[in-house]
Amino acid sequence: MSHPHPELGSPPPLPAHGLRIVALGGLGEIGRNMTVFEYGGRLLIVDCGVLFPEEEQPGIDLILPDFEYVRGRLDDIEAIVLTHAHEDHIGAVPYLLRERGDIPLIGSRLTLALIEAKLVEHRIKPVVRKVVEGDRQSYGPFDCEFLAVNHSIPDALAVAIRTPAGLVLGTGDFKMDQLPMDGRLTDLAGFARLGAEGIDLLMSDSTNAEVPGFVTSERNIGPVIDDVFRTAKERIIVACFASHIHRVQQALDAAVANGRKVCFVGRSMVRNMGVAGDLGYLRVPDGVLVEQRDLESIPAEKLALICTGSQGEPMSALSRMAGRDHQIRITDADTVVLASSLIPGNENAVNRVINGLTRWGARIVHKGNALVHVSGHASAGELLYVLNLTKPGNFMPIHGEWRHLRAHAKLAELTGVPPENIVIAEDGVVVDLVDGQASIVGIVPAGYVYVDGSSVGEITENSLKDRRILGEEGFVSVVVAIDSTSGKVIAGPEIHARGAGIMNEDFNEIIARIEVLLTEQAADGVADVHALRQSLRRTVGKWVSDSYRRRPMIIPVVVEV
Amino acid sequence: MSHPHPELGSPPPLPAHGLRIVALGGLGEIGRNMTVFEYGGRLLIVDCGVLFPEEEQPGIDLILPDFEYVRGRLDDIEAIVLTHAHEDHIGAVPYLLRERGDIPLIGSRLTLALIEAKLVEHRIKPVVRKVVEGDRQSYGPFDCEFLAVNHSIPDALAVAIRTPAGLVLGTGDFKMDQLPMDGRLTDLAGFARLGAEGIDLLMSDSTNAEVPGFVTSERNIGPVIDDVFRTAKERIIVACFASHIHRVQQALDAAVANGRKVCFVGRSMVRNMGVAGDLGYLRVPDGVLVEQRDLESIPAEKLALICTGSQGEPMSALSRMAGRDHQIRITDADTVVLASSLIPGNENAVNRVINGLTRWGARIVHKGNALVHVSGHASAGELLYVLNLTKPGNFMPIHGEWRHLRAHAKLAELTGVPPENIVIAEDGVVVDLVDGQASIVGIVPAGYVYVDGSSVGEITENSLKDRRILGEEGFVSVVVAIDSTSGKVIAGPEIHARGAGIMNEDFNEIIARIEVLLTEQAADGVADVHALRQSLRRTVGKWVSDSYRRRPMIIPVVVEV
Repeated sequence: MSHPHPELGSPPPLPAHGLRIVALGGLGEIGRNMTVFEYGGRLLIVDCGVLFPEEEQPGIDLILPDFEYVRGRLDDIEAIVLTHAHEDHIGAVPYLLRERGDIPLIGSRLTLALIEAKLVEHRIKPVVRKVVEGDRQSYGPFDCEFLAVNHSIPDALAVAIRTPAGLVLGTGDFKMDQLPMDGRLTDLAGFARLGAEGIDLLMSDSTNAEVPGFVTSERNIGPVIDDVFRTAKERIIVACFASHIHRVQQALDAAVANGRKVCFVGRSMVRNMGVAGDLGYLRVPDGVLVEQRDLESIPAEKLALICTGSQGEPMSALSRMAGRDHQIRITDADTVVLASSLIPGNENAVNRVINGLTRWGARIVHKGNALVHVSGHASAGELLYVLNLTKPGNFMPIHGEWRHLRAHAKLAELTGVPPENIVIAEDGVVVDLVDGQASIVGIVPAGYVYVDGSSVGEITENSLKDRRILGEEGFVSVVVAIDSTSGKVIAGPEIHARGAGIMNEDFNEIIARIEVLLTEQAADGVADVHALRQSLRRTVGKWVSDSYRRRPMIIPVVVEV
Repeated sequence: MSHPHPELGSPPPLPAHGLRIVALGGLGEIGRNMTVFEYGGRLLIVDCGVLFPEEEQPGIDLILPDFEYVRGRLDDIEAIVLTHAHEDHIGAVPYLLRERGDIPLIGSRLTLALIEAKLVEHRIKPVVRKVVEGDRQSYGPFDCEFLAVNHSIPDALAVAIRTPAGLVLGTGDFKMDQLPMDGRLTDLAGFARLGAEGIDLLMSDSTNAEVPGFVTSERNIGPVIDDVFRTAKERIIVACFASHIHRVQQALDAAVANGRKVCFVGRSMVRNMGVAGDLGYLRVPDGVLVEQRDLESIPAEKLALICTGSQGEPMSALSRMAGRDHQIRITDADTVVLASSLIPGNENAVNRVINGLTRWGARIVHKGNALVHVSGHASAGELLYVLNLTKPGNFMPIHGEWRHLRAHAKLAELTGVPPENIVIAEDGVVVDLVDGQASIVGIVPAGYVYVDGSSVGEITENSLKDRRILGEEGFVSVVVAIDSTSGKVIAGPEIHARGAGIMNEDFNEIIARIEVLLTEQAADGVADVHALRQSLRRTVGKWVSDSYRRRPMIIPVVVEV
C-alpha cells in the first residue's frame, strides 16, 4: 500500500493522457469533502463541503478546504458535482462561488433544492443542472454517469467519471439499506455493470470501515418510535438532523398514527422540511403541522416537537430546555427522543443535555437504550460487496480519518486488490492515474481555512495558538508611559489581568518590583522601548510563574508621550 | 422518589438521634467523591477525591470538593475512610490535610501505600490506620465494618457505618467479578448478613446503572492480550491506567510468556508499580523489567512497553509517539494496545492518538476491536443482586451523573424499595436519616474549587468566563495616556490585539476613529477617566463587531501622566 511520505514535494506536470486527483478535504478527516479531478487542462470538482471545528479550533464557525489549488484556474473548472446535500459535501459551495459565481452545480433535484435554499441566505443565485440516476452527461472532457445510492438523506448519487485515462467510480456517502424508506436502492447492478466494463479506480466511503457487519434498515426505527409515541405520558420531543428527511417522516407518521400535532423547531429544520415537503420528499397530511406560536393552545399529550439540537449545540432549543432556559419547561411527564448519531467530539455536549433533561425527570430515549438511530454509512460487510462487485484496478479509500482509510484499505486487500494498487492519500496528496496505475506523485497545500464571523481565512494558526494560550491561562498586561525624549518613565506601571486568576490586590508586589526595575534601567540609561518591553515581559512573567506556577500571556505596553 | 427542589435552603439542626449525610462531590457527576457523615456533633468523611476538568474549565488542573462545609469544624472530623486508591476517591486528600494534617486516614494496605506515596510529593506525612476486610473499628460514634469489594484496583473496600441512627452501607466503587484475578470476591455474603440485620440506608455505585447485564470477568482479557503478544511483529506498547494493577499483571504475564522484556513508562506507572511490586500486589519475575535508558539495546521483537497515556493526554509518551515527537518512532511493525476504557470527555484526544499511530501504520488494538478492557463498575444486573441481598429500608444512588442516579433509582424501585424511600440527591444536598426514614432537608454549598498551578480556589467562575471569552474571541486593548491635570490625551491610542484575527494594518481605521472621538470629547471637556474608558470600549467594540462580526474582549487602558 502506498501512503504519503513526508518527503513529498510539488507534483510533476500531468502526462497528457493522465487523470489527476487531488482531495482538498475528506482524507484523514471526516468533513469538508472536496476532490478535484484534472484531465487535459480542465477541472471537475466533486463535492465542496465544510468541516465543523473541534476544541482545538476555539471560536471558529466553520473550516473550509483551501481553494488556493484551484484559485488561479477558476476558469478551468467545468462544474461542481454535488453527490448529496449534507453540509460536509455542500457547505463550502457559497465560498467557492464567491470566487467564481457561474460554476455550474450538478446534482439531484433535492440536492439542488437544498443548496439553492442555502445560497439564498448568501444572496447567490447559482447556475444549476439537474441530473437523475441513469443520466450520463459530459462536462468538458469529463463524461459523468450518475447512479443512485442510499444514504441518510434522500436523492444521493454516486458518480462514474470517464476520461481517456480510464473509468473512476466515486461512491459519495452511501449505505446499502435493502429495504429503503423510499424504495431507492443503491444501484449495485450499475456498480456491477461498471465493474464488468473495467473500473480503473474506485473511490469509496470509508466512514464505517472499522464497523463489522451491516447497517440495520432505517425502516426498523419506525416501530420503535411508534412505540415511544404510544407509551409517552404527555409531550414528545424528537431531536434529529435537519437533513434526515426519512427519520423526520417516521416521527411524523408516528405522530399522525397517535393523534398528535407536530411542530418543527429550529431554523434549518423548518427550512429543510419546507423544501422537502414542497418537492414531495416529505409527506405531510393536512392539518398536522402547527406553528410554534400556537403551541400553548395544544394539550401536551396531543403534541410532538421535531427539532434540531441532537448534537447538544449549546444555543439549540433542546440544550436550553435541558438548562431550564426555554419557554418549554421539561417535566417528568415529557419524553425526549434523540433520534440521531452522536458525532465524535459532541459526546460531552450531548451528555450534558441528557443529564439536564434527566434532572427534571424526563424520559430520554436515545441510541444507547433503543433503536432510534442507524448510521448512514456502509459498514465493512457492505463495503466488501462493493469491492467485490466493482473489482477495481486501483482503490483509494475516501471520506475518513486515518483509522477508517486504513481499515478500508485492508478490506480492499482482502478482496484481492493488489497492495501496490491501493493508494492511501491525505488531503492535498496528488494522485495520478496513468496507464491504469494510480500513484502518489506529490503534494499541494490543503490546510484549514477558517470562517469566523464575517471573515474567511483571516484567522490563522497563530491566532488560534494565541486563543488557546489566552483560553487556558488568560493574560497580564503591564503599561508604562515614558517621556519620548528622555526615555524616562513618567507614568505607570499599570497592570491588568483577565483569566489569569490574579487578584488586583496582588499587583502591589509586582508593581513594586517593576518600579525597582525601572529605577535600575533609568540608572543604566536604558531608553530603548524594545528593551524596556522585554524586561517588563520577563519581570512580570517570572513573577507570575514563581508565585502561581502559571503562564499567562504577558503583554507589555510602552506608551511614548 | 424525592429529588432536590430549587427552593431548598439551609438545613435545620440535626435531631439528636439523627444521622446527617452530605455528599460534597460525586452526586450528579463522575468524580471528586466525598461524603460527610455527622452524628452527635462528630463527623466521618468517606473518600476525598478530585474531578478532572472538561473543556468548560479551560486551563484547570484539578477540581476539588468545596471544603467550606467542614472548614469551621475540622476538629470534629474523626477520620477519613478511603474505599480505594483511585484519584476520584483520594486525589483531594492532600488538600484537606493542608487544613488539618492529623486527620487519620483509614484504608486497606494498598490504598494507604498509594496515598502515602502520593503524599510524599506533597511533603505530607499522614496519620494512617490500616484495616482489612472483616475489621470493625469505631471512630468516635461511627462504628465501621469493612467488607471486600472487587474493582479495577485491588484491595477496595465497602464500609458499613453503624450509629444509633441506623446502619448505612456504602459500597464504594465496585463490581462483582466472580472469578477475580486475586480471588478476592465482593463480599456478597457480608452484604446478605447486613441485609438480614437491617440496612437502613444503602448508598451504592451508580456509574454503570444504565448498562444492562453483567461485566465480563477481567480474567477474559488475559488470553486476548496473550494473543496480541504472540502475533505482534515487533515492538508492543500497552497503554492502560497506572492504577490497574491486574491489567498490568496480565500484560506482564503475556510478556513473560512470550519472552519479552518489560519497561514501565510514565511517572505514575513507575511509582504505582513500584509500590504494588513491593507489597506483593504485582508479581514481577526477576530479570523481566528493564529501564527506559536500556531500551536501545533490546531488539524490538523482545520488548514490551507498559505506559500511561491511554486517555490521549497530550503530554504523555503515547501522544507524543503518535505525533512523532518522541524518541520511539512508530512504524508499521509496531503494535499498540489501548487496554483501558475511554473516559467520557476524552473521545477526541484518544481518537487523535489512534489516528496518529495508524498514520504510521501501527496496528492498534483497542476495546472497539478486541476484548482488552472491561469496566470496573457493576452493571445493572449486578446492582440488582446487591439491592435484593441488602433489602435496604432507604436507598440513595451515589457516584454518578443524573442519568446514572435516576437509572439506579429505577432499579431500586423495581426491586421493591418504596419510591418515597429513594433519595436522589445532588452534591451539597443534605440528607437526614431519622427514625429509619431518609429525607432531603436542605442544601449547603458544594461548588467547584479549582486547582490551577500552585493555587487552590483562586480561579473563580469569573476567571473561567474570561478565559472562555479570550479563548473563543481573543482581545483588543486600546491604550491612551492623558495629562492628569488637564485630562487632555497626550499619547496614543495604541492598539494591541491577540487571538482576535485582526491584522495590525487594520488598526489605522479604528485609530482614526478614536482620534475623532478623543477630539470630540476634548471639545466637550470630558475629563473623567472612567467615561473615557467606557467610550473607548464602546467605539472599539462597535468597530470590531461591524467590521468582523466578532466579539473579542475589549480592554481600554487610560494612563494618567
